[in-house]
Amino acid sequence: MKMNEYIEIINKSIDEFMPIIYPQRIFKAMKYTVTLPGKRLRPVMCLEACRLFGGNYNDAIPTACAIEMLHAQTLIHDDLPCMDNDDYRRGKLTNHKVFGEAHAVLAGDALLTFAPQIILKYSKNLGESKLIKIMEEYFHAAGAYGVIAGQVIDIESEKLMQSFEFSGKIDIEREELEKTLEYIHTHKTADLFKLALRTGAIIADADENQLSEITDFAQNLGVAFQIADDILDEISTFEQMGKTLGKDKEEGKLTYVSLYGLEKSKKDLNILIDKCFDILQKNNLKSEIFEEILNKIRIK
Amino acid sequence: MKMNEYIEIINKSIDEFMPIIYPQRIFKAMKYTVTLPGKRLRPVMCLEACRLFGGNYNDAIPTACAIEMLHAQTLIHDDLPCMDNDDYRRGKLTNHKVFGEAHAVLAGDALLTFAPQIILKYSKNLGESKLIKIMEEYFHAAGAYGVIAGQVIDIESEKLMQSFEFSGKIDIEREELEKTLEYIHTHKTADLFKLALRTGAIIADADENQLSEITDFAQNLGVAFQIADDILDEISTFEQMGKTLGKDKEEGKLTYVSLYGLEKSKKDLNILIDKCFDILQKNNLKSEIFEEILNKIRIK
Repeated sequence: MKMNEYIEIINKSIDEFMPIIYPQRIFKAMKYTVTLPGKRLRPVMCLEACRLFGGNYNDAIPTACAIEMLHAQTLIHDDLPCMDNDDYRRGKLTNHKVFGEAHAVLAGDALLTFAPQIILKYSKNLGESKLIKIMEEYFHAAGAYGVIAGQVIDIESEKLMQSFEFSGKIDIEREELEKTLEYIHTHKTADLFKLALRTGAIIADADENQLSEITDFAQNLGVAFQIADDILDEISTFEQMGKTLGKDKEEGKLTYVSLYGLEKSKKDLNILIDKCFDILQKNNLKSEIFEEILNKIRIK
Repeated sequence: MKMNEYIEIINKSIDEFMPIIYPQRIFKAMKYTVTLPGKRLRPVMCLEACRLFGGNYNDAIPTACAIEMLHAQTLIHDDLPCMDNDDYRRGKLTNHKVFGEAHAVLAGDALLTFAPQIILKYSKNLGESKLIKIMEEYFHAAGAYGVIAGQVIDIESEKLMQSFEFSGKIDIEREELEKTLEYIHTHKTADLFKLALRTGAIIADADENQLSEITDFAQNLGVAFQIADDILDEISTFEQMGKTLGKDKEEGKLTYVSLYGLEKSKKDLNILIDKCFDILQKNNLKSEIFEEILNKIRIK
């Protein structure tokens, strides 16, 4: 399969899984952010992981789409005025700018349970044991052990960053900041990548060893992806990224670039990408899709 | 079992299910609202439904506690400034007043997936089929087909109510308002009662007919409960209710009292309570607990 073919399947399936029914405004708000133009990276990875471990990627479609819905949920709530207060996302107005804050909160809430509902409804053929395993993976990634842990520490790190700047850069504090940043990237970004790749692999009956390798791949890819995002926030334009940029710097936010500088960020990004290629090769996982994703986030 | 014994079991179990781990502030925020002093009506009903249909109520404890967590989730988000903007709940400061708005949004989000995670983790003995049934019930009640549908229409009804007042009370609009109010009460309140009673019954292996009867009971009880709440908002004091009162009236909110007046509200409340007693008797369901709950919401 080519990337574009996967993306087309995902977009078509999401459209079918999300009819606009009464009360329309909440279903419209949910669908608005899920269907914003995007790379569909997480669902693509879910389908490809399923294929790569010998499964039929069609079996992973509901799960893949559910993960894109969960991802949209995190975007809707992260963009709220009380969080990052962003007006644009993927070149379009954010959810609360279109539907109002109350509906944006509720649309996010609704997606959190709508997504796994889609899995249960359309993946009955997987059998009960696998469905329960997928539910466990989903809850773990979506909740206070996963993306929410990352978001909480991200918010709290702004304060930490300020106190760091005031107090002068002594080593012990620097170490704390480095650990904190790793924690944020792991949970805020890599946990959804792990969810996508692990569930795809579980659907394909991957064994424990394969699951552990693909989790390692997801961790490295997730952190690489977030470092690339931090770099692009610094060097891109609004037109290229579709969201307000330079905010990280302005708000004194803890990012890879603010902590390590632009040059080391680029270097570490490429080291992580190479590590991902190594994991694929070591495990004899031949995937044009993963290679394409890895090459796309490389920055020279 | 007596009401107090059930409540004690629920409080003790919630405390055990919710340890405060890193990142502490989010787990503290989650636990804060779940453990506010309360009647634990929904989890009590879940345990009692399980017992009443011949099950062991111990098997329903994780599910019962999860439903109380879901209930707390709806309270945290409903109280947010962009929703009902309430400062007090059960006599204490609301979640965002203590932890800040960002953490309150995230605490609610986290509870939505933490709750079913507790069910999967601590109810393995129920078997996979029952666990999946419970998940389906949970997602349905928690999402855009359940409580969120109720909350959305509740928010939107404020506008409807205003246009109703401006335009003079013609019949067609009155009918629309009546239907809208029934919809709000059904989803915002009765759906969680249904979840509690249906899952308790499912755990006890209740048959389709029994499930349908208990759903009917939950619907009537839920609407009765909400009418009682609307009446108390009008006639009680802050000390009695533990939250800011008279807000419904002040904000021109659509409530049973604003639509039908105080006298008819009281009359209809008692009709619904009698209906609930009838369902219990007709089905030979002898429950001191349910009788106690029904008698408590009666208003003379």
